[in-house]
Amino acid sequence: MKKVRWGILGAGRIARQFAADIRFAPTAGLHAVGARQGPSAISFAREFGIPAAHASYEALLSDPDVDAIYVATPHSFHLEQSLAALRAGKAVLCEKPLTTSPDDCRALARAAHDQDTYLMEALWTAFLPSIQKAREWLDDGRIGELVQLRADFGFSAAFNPRDRLWNPALAGGALLDIGIYPIAFNRLMLGRGPDHISSILKMASTGVDEEVFTMFQTGDITSLLTCSFKCNLDNTGVLIGTRGRIVLPDFWRSTSAFLYEDGSLIESFDDQRRGNGFEFEIEAASRDILNGRKQSETVPLSLSLALQEDMADVISAGDAARAG
Amino acid sequence: MKKVRWGILGAGRIARQFAADIRFAPTAGLHAVGARQGPSAISFAREFGIPAAHASYEALLSDPDVDAIYVATPHSFHLEQSLAALRAGKAVLCEKPLTTSPDDCRALARAAHDQDTYLMEALWTAFLPSIQKAREWLDDGRIGELVQLRADFGFSAAFNPRDRLWNPALAGGALLDIGIYPIAFNRLMLGRGPDHISSILKMASTGVDEEVFTMFQTGDITSLLTCSFKCNLDNTGVLIGTRGRIVLPDFWRSTSAFLYEDGSLIESFDDQRRGNGFEFEIEAASRDILNGRKQSETVPLSLSLALQEDMADVISAGDAARAG
Repeated sequence: MKKVRWGILGAGRIARQFAADIRFAPTAGLHAVGARQGPSAISFAREFGIPAAHASYEALLSDPDVDAIYVATPHSFHLEQSLAALRAGKAVLCEKPLTTSPDDCRALARAAHDQDTYLMEALWTAFLPSIQKAREWLDDGRIGELVQLRADFGFSAAFNPRDRLWNPALAGGALLDIGIYPIAFNRLMLGRGPDHISSILKMASTGVDEEVFTMFQTGDITSLLTCSFKCNLDNTGVLIGTRGRIVLPDFWRSTSAFLYEDGSLIESFDDQRRGNGFEFEIEAASRDILNGRKQSETVPLSLSLALQEDMADVISAGDAARAG
Repeated sequence: MKKVRWGILGAGRIARQFAADIRFAPTAGLHAVGARQGPSAISFAREFGIPAAHASYEALLSDPDVDAIYVATPHSFHLEQSLAALRAGKAVLCEKPLTTSPDDCRALARAAHDQDTYLMEALWTAFLPSIQKAREWLDDGRIGELVQLRADFGFSAAFNPRDRLWNPALAGGALLDIGIYPIAFNRLMLGRGPDHISSILKMASTGVDEEVFTMFQTGDITSLLTCSFKCNLDNTGVLIGTRGRIVLPDFWRSTSAFLYEDGSLIESFDDQRRGNGFEFEIEAASRDILNGRKQSETVPLSLSLALQEDMADVISAGDAARAG
């Protein structure tokens, strides 16, 4: 089977997860890794059995044996590095959030279009089988009419102004870092964005949001979406209908889905994955690339832009509320 | 032991619960019931072994052997009937919500003051041992600093414009009917009301709210409080802190409380009640009355007024959002 030869840009936590899961994606192979520090690249390559280790991002992007780049750096670097990868003629899968503003997202999408090169945001949630199963149950009317959607993502982290999470220079803040998951979950389930947003933003002393509460109104459906660095939340995604509910524990890395009708568990689904769940997006992107597609049908750039716009709207709705 | 001789005004669902639970309140006795229809009063009295059955509310209020009246009618009648009971010189325990507006609440409180007579809103949640245990854990800092409070109350009810729930003439709507529970829970736990309210109101075709979503900001604490006639909700009350959480299943009639620290269950509490939970408020009110108090310390009229104001603020904040 023909395989896409991937190169990983960055050697951090999320890069490791990608490298660990890629073996479960049949059309993807790992050819190279590039890091700012040579020793990091070398030890990463050794750990995951990667043929090539590059001591700079430039060297990685110049490697003629790399077809596609996975951008695994913090999001403040995504625009610049994805642009560089696209200009080097590589297909690009870039960690989420794709950029840190709608304008940057438009610029990046335009670059991909101009280069006629593949670009996808690594919104792995969209490819998880349990998420797709939930959408199927929803579309089949199994919970009656959808009334409410709820999704939280929060963890208790010790405040540290130098940490990326709280650092405005590194585009810190809960919304961009983890809030994108509930917001993306909402769009994946509803298929569209909200008509009205209310939000409360809790700001850290560094000036970034460390906790965000939102109410989205989409037609008759209300979504409560929250994220927090201040406390552990359930991190469950729930779709509540007139007749039942769908529950997705740890929805952002969901392995299972549960369907309740009239209060009773009717059906459950387990994805029996072998990796950590990145394999689904890796396989989907690799197939796109092998088939000469320029965008993902599941996570098109229009969805990435919509998520950026949702997050910008949450911030501005929150600002309005604080001023009031 | 001296007992307060209670008379029940109304013979509906909530009157039955009161009558069933009063035997577990040592200082309370059941002397009479009054209903608009004689046969209702008689069959109710027979079922619960009540000495006197009155075929009108007036007859009940004129019964010299009745010390205290429990007003168990729909809330649109509370003001008029509680006033009549106070003027008849009876101590009054009135179902919640005490009234349907802050102005009515002020008028009723003034009447109790002028008559120098006992008046309490039947906010039974406030007297539940598990609720008091939760407050104790909270005050002892067991979950660290309180960050979030969540409480939902919802059930899926078939829309029926003639039903009390949707009838504007009977002060229908989810907020007054069940939304008062999450809002009262918030005040019971925080000890004060919000600094800022955002809300979404979903209106039924009859013009009453059938689903309400609110975000309350109280200092650094955010509360998400919702109620719905459109879908079954968890009906759980949750206090989320920097170090742990307190969970109260079915918080509005709570029998148990669970304390989690760092994700592990540390302590649990079960109230081992013998009745349905009304016995705690009945006993508290009876002791107040026997002791000559004019108000409850746990549920003073200032709390009832505050709840009326919270609900009015939720409505006006929602109106503002709809207009925007």
